[in-house]
Amino acid sequence: MSEAAMENRGRRRRGRGDGEPTGPAPARAQPRLPFKPVAAISEDALEAIHEASLTVLEEIGMDFLHEGARALLRDAGADVDPASQRVRLPRALVESRIGLAPRSFTLHARNPERTLQIGGNAVAFCSVGSAPNAADRDGGRRPGNRVDYQNLIRLGHTLDAVHLWGGYPVEPADVHASVRHLDALWDMLTLSDKAIHAYSLGRERNLDAIEMIRIARGIDHETLEREPSVFTIINSSSPLRLDGPMLEGIIQMAKRNQVVVLTPFTLAGAMAPVTLAGALAQQNAEALAGLVVAQTVRPGSPFVYGGFTSNVDMKTGAPAFGTPEYMKAALIGGQLARRYGLPYRSSNANAANTLDAQAAYESVFSLWGAIMGGANLLMHGAGWMEGGLHASFEKMVLDADLLDMVANFLRPVQVDAEELALSAMREVGPGGHFFGCAHTQSRYRTAFFAPMISDWRNYESWEEAGAPTAYDTANRLYKQRLAAHEPPPMDPAIRDELEAFVARRKAEGGAPTDY
Amino acid sequence: MSEAAMENRGRRRRGRGDGEPTGPAPARAQPRLPFKPVAAISEDALEAIHEASLTVLEEIGMDFLHEGARALLRDAGADVDPASQRVRLPRALVESRIGLAPRSFTLHARNPERTLQIGGNAVAFCSVGSAPNAADRDGGRRPGNRVDYQNLIRLGHTLDAVHLWGGYPVEPADVHASVRHLDALWDMLTLSDKAIHAYSLGRERNLDAIEMIRIARGIDHETLEREPSVFTIINSSSPLRLDGPMLEGIIQMAKRNQVVVLTPFTLAGAMAPVTLAGALAQQNAEALAGLVVAQTVRPGSPFVYGGFTSNVDMKTGAPAFGTPEYMKAALIGGQLARRYGLPYRSSNANAANTLDAQAAYESVFSLWGAIMGGANLLMHGAGWMEGGLHASFEKMVLDADLLDMVANFLRPVQVDAEELALSAMREVGPGGHFFGCAHTQSRYRTAFFAPMISDWRNYESWEEAGAPTAYDTANRLYKQRLAAHEPPPMDPAIRDELEAFVARRKAEGGAPTDY
Repeated sequence: MSEAAMENRGRRRRGRGDGEPTGPAPARAQPRLPFKPVAAISEDALEAIHEASLTVLEEIGMDFLHEGARALLRDAGADVDPASQRVRLPRALVESRIGLAPRSFTLHARNPERTLQIGGNAVAFCSVGSAPNAADRDGGRRPGNRVDYQNLIRLGHTLDAVHLWGGYPVEPADVHASVRHLDALWDMLTLSDKAIHAYSLGRERNLDAIEMIRIARGIDHETLEREPSVFTIINSSSPLRLDGPMLEGIIQMAKRNQVVVLTPFTLAGAMAPVTLAGALAQQNAEALAGLVVAQTVRPGSPFVYGGFTSNVDMKTGAPAFGTPEYMKAALIGGQLARRYGLPYRSSNANAANTLDAQAAYESVFSLWGAIMGGANLLMHGAGWMEGGLHASFEKMVLDADLLDMVANFLRPVQVDAEELALSAMREVGPGGHFFGCAHTQSRYRTAFFAPMISDWRNYESWEEAGAPTAYDTANRLYKQRLAAHEPPPMDPAIRDELEAFVARRKAEGGAPTDY
Repeated sequence: MSEAAMENRGRRRRGRGDGEPTGPAPARAQPRLPFKPVAAISEDALEAIHEASLTVLEEIGMDFLHEGARALLRDAGADVDPASQRVRLPRALVESRIGLAPRSFTLHARNPERTLQIGGNAVAFCSVGSAPNAADRDGGRRPGNRVDYQNLIRLGHTLDAVHLWGGYPVEPADVHASVRHLDALWDMLTLSDKAIHAYSLGRERNLDAIEMIRIARGIDHETLEREPSVFTIINSSSPLRLDGPMLEGIIQMAKRNQVVVLTPFTLAGAMAPVTLAGALAQQNAEALAGLVVAQTVRPGSPFVYGGFTSNVDMKTGAPAFGTPEYMKAALIGGQLARRYGLPYRSSNANAANTLDAQAAYESVFSLWGAIMGGANLLMHGAGWMEGGLHASFEKMVLDADLLDMVANFLRPVQVDAEELALSAMREVGPGGHFFGCAHTQSRYRTAFFAPMISDWRNYESWEEAGAPTAYDTANRLYKQRLAAHEPPPMDPAIRDELEAFVARRKAEGGAPTDY
């Protein structure tokens, strides 16, 4: 079956939210892929991966560490082993849940201008998420804390290339776990007005996040259920396991029509087969398992297919990112997502310890795979370092530049009489130069993308200026931007309501810490 | 007309060398693009650029600073202004020369195992070429000289990712210009056995280079004419000019069936219109002008379409590389080359002054545009820095790593029962790990690409090791590799003949320096 035919099949079977977003169009233009995503493997090979993953789900099965999820799946026709947590999903069950989730949907931010389309040919860039450490060159690498958390939010808020938050940029680990989500979401919703993510770490945290974005948007529960306003990343515990908090997250979010992004953590050679096809078959099995749960809870709820397959360094077992294997997996992940008519999540990843050439080339290789693979939601877009172990202030600024370059690359080239510039070529003629001609003069200020970081001075001027590296420039720029941050406006009544909610939930003791 | 239809048209009209190379197959596998190149603009827009460039050639014309070339074009039906050097090329003349050059050809090296296919879906990576300065971290940046020249040749020879020489890696400027080409080609042909480039700086230099590769290959003149063995880069003096040495180079090389790579130097906003469509229309006009000359001299001689369009920094006028504009121009350049059934040349370019994140991201963005654009010949693949103003030892090693990653990315993903690894997933099961299973153990040593530079140690180990950056690692590695260089074997009789030729030509005074 051709890709187009499969897409049509998906379309016919779609329950709701087909094609374009139903909410207001985002006011800020998101990047859109102007060409077809690149297919790394044939349709036959894609079907072989699909078939292998159905065999995995039907014959090997997966462990679902959540009684409610197992009951749900049993009722849906799955084979649930009463003596263990193993669930085998018949092909027919899996196939019946494909095509129900929307191909594209709107993710609402508290500021409508920050509302995003997720899916189709639109691309949305997240900040770094979930790093346990923060770093900048002045302060070095230190454990996550609320000050760095707030500053990374402030910094990211000033960067237009960061479209939304993909979790906490760094873990504010000095806030007690029972109330951390309340403080962290308070900061995120008041220091910024971009769309948000909520961690699936127990039912209470999901529900608190949903309630906080509802309050921040100033809408009622019905509107919230119509308008997805928060997303959660669900990682399977590869191989072939979904743990309790993650399953609870799928259930709570899907039930309220909020966004589930299912991302298996399939590192080839460690938590997945050492071969790319095998790792992708496992990734696909785990992603489809999550899809079955979400679409059983609420058919048509927004669901994103996440690909994160990479390889480990077989010498040390350390995860590697931005590798050739990562790039190929990113392309094929996109083919699989489109096979199922789902938006596709990928990442801007690297495994470097410092902001050197490695950090840059691994990041751009990751972007290459993600973007050409048709990623709709790019996690860890700005600030991710060290395989996710630290969030870097300098890298956040440098990545924002990379993301802006990618967005500019995706902007279609205009070809018309004015742009073809025959008149300018006539005016200048052989041997002349274009600096002074009218065609140049009327356009040069905005003709080309102007990066923040790239230093294009000649060698002598650059040397006289102290021979700054990109790391130096990013260090200087992040401080400037951070100093310039201003919290976006928030209706005082909404702010009061949000504050009261946080206070009440804290007084209640927050959320359990034994999730 | 669809791209496939146009390619067929080109094929029908081709005179010789259609499709696959006619010589022996290269023994070392070159990377091959496993998917269709990415089209950045529609067929209609492509035709609009084609039409605009034909209008430029017909109505504005170009200056050809070479009397013989003007006479040739006059005889071919061009409109040659007797009072100037301006030549206007009728559309019919240009169209008649399209489709004559081979779609793909073999470029022979003195070592047959280094012989390359240029065209089709094959990719060949050149070293850096033509830098006026050399640099490494220990010695800093210094004017080009023969010692650095030789050492860059030695280093590049040890790097398998460098498939051929794209000119002198650095200018050996301490050798007198009259005999520099003799010493430089002697070094290149004795310190390495990879395919070579010759500069078009006057007739004598072209002929000396052709003779030296003939001697080095140990073949007669007839074989050399059947087997292209040297290529020359022809840069137009944009806008719309071809100077005397360049035209002489096209004539001498085409006459002997050696390879002409025509690369207009169209920096948008300086030597070309500030708009991308305009700069590309001019690039195309200049490339087609060179094609007309080459295919008039010898129909069917090997010709490569070169794209180098980038933008300048409009604040300073400095050239910029690896920009979004560069990437788009690289994609569209590939579309134009395929429109004419010609192999496509692009570059691995950057404008950074030091081996920092900028050098890496600009390079990988350039590679992204070049590779996805279907480049067959990648110039400046390894070692180019500072917009071409210096060749870096460290960057050569780092780039070789990037090129190897690209080659690995292009290697097709196998999807079959063994690779899908169902048996391994059955063996490991939910919650296990794959390190120890048989499927992993039999593959892990070669499963993944192992980079030279990337440092994947954990942060603590990396810090204890002195927190090396990629620059540090490249500095260490280039010295190791340089020390390990051994000149490839050469038949003593051939070596004697080559030495005698160089001695004789030096005794004759070398080549004129007033080219």
